[in-house]
Amino acid sequence: KRSYTITLLPGDGIGPEVISVAKDVLVLAGSFEGITYEFREMLLGGAALDATGVPMPDETLSVSKQSDAVLLGAIGGYKWDKNEKHLKPETGLLQLRSGLQVFANLRPATVFPQLVDASTLKKEVAEGVDLMVVRELTGGIYFGKPRGFGTNENGQETGFNTEIYSAHEIDRIARLAFEIARKRRGKLCSVDKANVLEASMLWRKIVTELALEYPDVELTHMYVDNAAMQLVRYPKQFDTVLTNNIFGDILSDEASMITGSIGMLPSASIGASGPGLFEPIHGSAPDIAGQDKANPFATVLSAAMLLKYGLGEERAAERIEKAVLDTLNRGFRTADIYSAGTKLVGCKQVGEEILKSV
Amino acid sequence: KRSYTITLLPGDGIGPEVISVAKDVLVLAGSFEGITYEFREMLLGGAALDATGVPMPDETLSVSKQSDAVLLGAIGGYKWDKNEKHLKPETGLLQLRSGLQVFANLRPATVFPQLVDASTLKKEVAEGVDLMVVRELTGGIYFGKPRGFGTNENGQETGFNTEIYSAHEIDRIARLAFEIARKRRGKLCSVDKANVLEASMLWRKIVTELALEYPDVELTHMYVDNAAMQLVRYPKQFDTVLTNNIFGDILSDEASMITGSIGMLPSASIGASGPGLFEPIHGSAPDIAGQDKANPFATVLSAAMLLKYGLGEERAAERIEKAVLDTLNRGFRTADIYSAGTKLVGCKQVGEEILKSV
Ligand SMILES: CC(C)[C@H](C(=O)O)[C@@H](O)C(=O)O
Ligand SMILES: CC(C)[C@H](C(=O)O)[C@@H](O)C(=O)O
Repeated sequence: KRSYTITLLPGDGIGPEVISVAKDVLVLAGSFEGITYEFREMLLGGAALDATGVPMPDETLSVSKQSDAVLLGAIGGYKWDKNEKHLKPETGLLQLRSGLQVFANLRPATVFPQLVDASTLKKEVAEGVDLMVVRELTGGIYFGKPRGFGTNENGQETGFNTEIYSAHEIDRIARLAFEIARKRRGKLCSVDKANVLEASMLWRKIVTELALEYPDVELTHMYVDNAAMQLVRYPKQFDTVLTNNIFGDILSDEASMITGSIGMLPSASIGASGPGLFEPIHGSAPDIAGQDKANPFATVLSAAMLLKYGLGEERAAERIEKAVLDTLNRGFRTADIYSAGTKLVGCKQVGEEILKSV
Repeated sequence: KRSYTITLLPGDGIGPEVISVAKDVLVLAGSFEGITYEFREMLLGGAALDATGVPMPDETLSVSKQSDAVLLGAIGGYKWDKNEKHLKPETGLLQLRSGLQVFANLRPATVFPQLVDASTLKKEVAEGVDLMVVRELTGGIYFGKPRGFGTNENGQETGFNTEIYSAHEIDRIARLAFEIARKRRGKLCSVDKANVLEASMLWRKIVTELALEYPDVELTHMYVDNAAMQLVRYPKQFDTVLTNNIFGDILSDEASMITGSIGMLPSASIGASGPGLFEPIHGSAPDIAGQDKANPFATVLSAAMLLKYGLGEERAAERIEKAVLDTLNRGFRTADIYSAGTKLVGCKQVGEEILKSV
């Protein structure tokens, strides 16, 4: 019997609702595979701000670090939007990512055949899209120093940030991307702005050197502006996409919208050691919070990624993935993915249907 | 009789072919409105590198500065892709933009009804899209200092750039965007990453303050990752989009691809005074250069923007815009926008057909 400690971070908005469903699914899928869990629920984001005055309490980080994996719902909301930087829910999330040293953010963008019509792209363009964005998550302009506010030589107020990458930071994320590409369709596209930025020039140099160790992976390079176009033009050209923190933020969101399955997409953030952080890519949707309208599929699939990438429990992960597909095939939909001829249900009932299929 | 001096920068790849067409159209449209020109052709990009050893010769800048407007074809090509930074064609373009102080890059993304099927988006999503990206062009991470390569405390090589904006830089581009929004549908969406970046926080603050001077314009703010999604989900929600240099690079390319009309889209880069720089948004397409396959519509429409924004010659500009639509209506298409039932012709013939319609 294998037992794991899981930190749950419900967060804000619809976070608690989707985490509750995912927890039940984790437990049931685990029970069939001889897995038990000890769950610890901690505060993050706006919920933490309201209760403790900071968006990521020390205890949240220390408990997370001591656990085998962390499952996060969503953070943020209008209520805290005007807060100063150190009191923003987002700052808490960034502190958690940094504290856990989860430098690799894996964001699959997959079109579910049952939902292909939800894409705004033509069916023949969207169907079959199956790509993985590997985004650097603990470096670049998100964390680079110096940053802040100042005054320039003309006495004008300035705001500034530093995009900086070291060879080591690039090497470790690129290695992971090559490994992932190898297990997928063997194609890696590294996205940068090496025609303008020095940080991107180093990025491209390190990635190119590393390619010698992965002769079985086909490496290409693309400028970020072109990548933003190519995702719209012909998304099926991509298998694995490697990019930095800010470009990954933008491109992974674009890619997920292209699938039309945005309420369905999970993510995994992992480091060299220590627990991974797993979360849906969608936000906290404060407008529908507490109304049993949230789509829990993405969080449930994040729980599957937790089992697969976080705990190495592939069989339990597959159980969940199959249960999700089965639930879709049986026609159950939340409002965001509803279409004529399917069954519109709430967050809880989707959870119950997934449990039936596990 | 009004006379203007125009600097032509054909550049690389298909640049000379599309500039040649646009020049003829400028001349003819001008002749009907009592306008004459003196053209001066100068070197930029790879063409300049090959001839003079630098991507933007001093003479190119000084002649450009002395003229009333600058019309550019395209720069770059595989041949110079591995050049060191200061010997890249792109560096020449950035030096020109900076030298001319054209801080505002206007990039319309319009769906031509005749070409709506060329979009990969569903017809009902693409048709009627008509937005304008106002991109800051001479600041931000493209030009910020310090930049370069270094070594960190662990002896690791680093590459770094600085994203920096001053209140003045934000104010002048935002003012222009408000003015443009006012002349369009009165909606301005400012795109930033103010939940993470200090440079964006200052951006949002200045834009918000300025909104008080434009009570007739409806201002909204959007995070860049969300904007990348919303452009795919529902592009018609946008009228005027204001953003920084790097986000504008990415989002304007994404927006243009969404229209399906990428071979059709012009751009204008303007400053507080001095000549503007007008260029198609597409690249130099080295693979089809010299084969009479290039699509000259975007450069011809850039010439129309030159007349309108650069010289204040609205009537001549409208003549060109009408001639373009008329040529499309008469069914003439280059290969990139060809569809069954239309007439496939080369770059030169498109030019001749536009001349017939001027
Ligand atoms: C909430 C925000 C700080 C975060 C980011 O920019 O990384 C989010 O957009 C994401 O992609 O997870
Ligand atoms: C060629 C390159 C330097 C340029 C940019 O990034 O500005 C181009 O992508 C553009 O958008 O005009």
